Amino acid sequence: MSAAPDLYSPDRLDRARELAAAAGVDALLVSPSADLRYLTGYAALALERLTCLVLPVRGAPFLVAPELEVPAARTTPLERLGVEIVGWAETDDPYALIAKRLPDDVSRVAVDNHMWAEKVVAFRAALPQAEQVLAGPVLRQLRVRKTPAEVEALRRAAAAIDRVHAAVPQWLSAGRTERAVGRDIADAIVAEGHVRVDFVIVASGPNGASPHHELSDRIIEPGDPVVVDIGGATADGYCSDETRTYVVGEPPADFVAYYDVLASAQSAACAAVRPGVSAEFVDAAARAIIADAGYGAHFIHRTGHGIGLETHEEPYIVAGNTERLEPGMAFSVEPGIYLAGRHGARIEDILVCTDGGGERLNLRPRQLVRC
Amino acid sequence: MSAAPDLYSPDRLDRARELAAAAGVDALLVSPSADLRYLTGYAALALERLTCLVLPVRGAPFLVAPELEVPAARTTPLERLGVEIVGWAETDDPYALIAKRLPDDVSRVAVDNHMWAEKVVAFRAALPQAEQVLAGPVLRQLRVRKTPAEVEALRRAAAAIDRVHAAVPQWLSAGRTERAVGRDIADAIVAEGHVRVDFVIVASGPNGASPHHELSDRIIEPGDPVVVDIGGATADGYCSDETRTYVVGEPPADFVAYYDVLASAQSAACAAVRPGVSAEFVDAAARAIIADAGYGAHFIHRTGHGIGLETHEEPYIVAGNTERLEPGMAFSVEPGIYLAGRHGARIEDILVCTDGGGERLNLRPRQLVRC
Repeated sequence: MSAAPDLYSPDRLDRARELAAAAGVDALLVSPSADLRYLTGYAALALERLTCLVLPVRGAPFLVAPELEVPAARTTPLERLGVEIVGWAETDDPYALIAKRLPDDVSRVAVDNHMWAEKVVAFRAALPQAEQVLAGPVLRQLRVRKTPAEVEALRRAAAAIDRVHAAVPQWLSAGRTERAVGRDIADAIVAEGHVRVDFVIVASGPNGASPHHELSDRIIEPGDPVVVDIGGATADGYCSDETRTYVVGEPPADFVAYYDVLASAQSAACAAVRPGVSAEFVDAAARAIIADAGYGAHFIHRTGHGIGLETHEEPYIVAGNTERLEPGMAFSVEPGIYLAGRHGARIEDILVCTDGGGERLNLRPRQLVRC
Repeated sequence: MSAAPDLYSPDRLDRARELAAAAGVDALLVSPSADLRYLTGYAALALERLTCLVLPVRGAPFLVAPELEVPAARTTPLERLGVEIVGWAETDDPYALIAKRLPDDVSRVAVDNHMWAEKVVAFRAALPQAEQVLAGPVLRQLRVRKTPAEVEALRRAAAAIDRVHAAVPQWLSAGRTERAVGRDIADAIVAEGHVRVDFVIVASGPNGASPHHELSDRIIEPGDPVVVDIGGATADGYCSDETRTYVVGEPPADFVAYYDVLASAQSAACAAVRPGVSAEFVDAAARAIIADAGYGAHFIHRTGHGIGLETHEEPYIVAGNTERLEPGMAFSVEPGIYLAGRHGARIEDILVCTDGGGERLNLRPRQLVRC
């Protein structure tokens, strides 16, 4: 439930409060989510009973939680950070409880981006005078730039998933199902230092042409390219996410024709990362090389996504995102080429933007691995 | 991704549409959730990119999904059920796309209860003329009464978790940590017929007094009572959830004093289940026995929760819920007694309400098991 103490400090609550005030928000309402964990270290599950951090711009923060969750909440950094824990009994109304503790003149509240609609609607009823906005624009200003401690946490996660990829060739062989290979990988994700398996994609042959294919009972055949995209979360909550493409035996000629194009595109996008360039510039760096080689129509997703306490968070490396990269931003660079009905390939690393450019946290080789 | 075909039929979409019309709703907007799986068999993950079933009261249903998810969506029952799949490219606006396809006179839309706030807010902006309500009151009318096929699915899940509990005594012993025991249990949950581990609580000694304690590095000691509350989901999406309390060696006297009270309370609540009684009547049946024995202040949660495609769903077996039970409703009966700093106990079975009364789906003995 709790996390390494150096990751959490009262500074985050103070900074969030300042940014909320600057945005004209009177209080942040944060239900169980990566936002809650980021602010307080409390990794609660989103459930039907309301758990909610209330961070007023003026006044002391408090966490409202079902009484049966209070013992677990007390084991987290919450109280050390000055957050009072207020339990509610099964027949209490926690929304009314929050409304009563907030000042009457609250005119704008910000709810966390992942709060369930039923909670959003219940807050609308309990605080009818308050305009509801999203907390994302406030909290992203904190979460999007990783501190050195967060970068180290991402580096540990990246090293853990690197170790899993190093072992993948020993499990990938003709005659095994994707599901069997996936089971070995899931076990290794935990054994190598994650506490949670987030996703295991083993996409063999034609399944590789579906970027979000997961696992099936398809039996891997000789000559199959296999996209392996895997990730999990470490004990302190930070995520890993790395893709490599393997081939079992001799690859088909039409696959070999585009794999090197893809590797060049991924390298070019990594090299394009530096402070001051836009997110879409990095996307374009990959896309131009793939398009020039005639595969533009087969690269059907953005180049990447931010990563931290969530596998997908800001900044998104996508056309149309003109946001400038800054030191501390961490994200994936993962172009892919997909030939429907045939096969596909993707290469993905996590990078952190530094003053000197993009630093890769994943260190596995990127050439095609033959098993 | 897909599920047993007999669980899904176009009837559910038709019934949802009728109930929506009766509630004055012009369209249901259903993002990835148990609601989406219930209606269409599509078990999509909730992600930052919008996936949404649009079920207008008049007109054909369609699913809007990111282009890279479309291949996976095509492997589900969606198209067989008459739902058109509409992909959107990375730089499209899926909310505008939905607004454009809906009739101009849509004046009330219902969003699924678990839709993320960021999506709720984006729909508010894209459909400014439409009042937003929750889809829960419409969809719960379908989901709360399980069909015979759903009851069979819950029965399979219950039998699977029964098999895991049957093996728990072989893993529970003094000198092992909760976490080590939990790892054995998690492996068995998958080995015995689940595709996903949802939760593993091994709460030994004083940890048993925290109802939602999960796992810790505490070493189990001789004489420890141990609450083991475990569950997962089967391939067709239905959930298991069963608690038994074990004791390693000789139990403490103050524990023995209340365990039989708890077992009587759980039996009484199970016996109280029949069509026409209220949910709170079942809660009161357990609570009265515990209170009469002087432990009322130590039973700090409701008696149960509905179960189906979610571990926690309606109906909730809680004081204040006057809803009448009906045949097909499925829920847990799980009273507990918790002595802070000492130990705790909980006994939980899943029941389905039938014409003849409550039928237990979990069949493990309920007396204290000594390991």
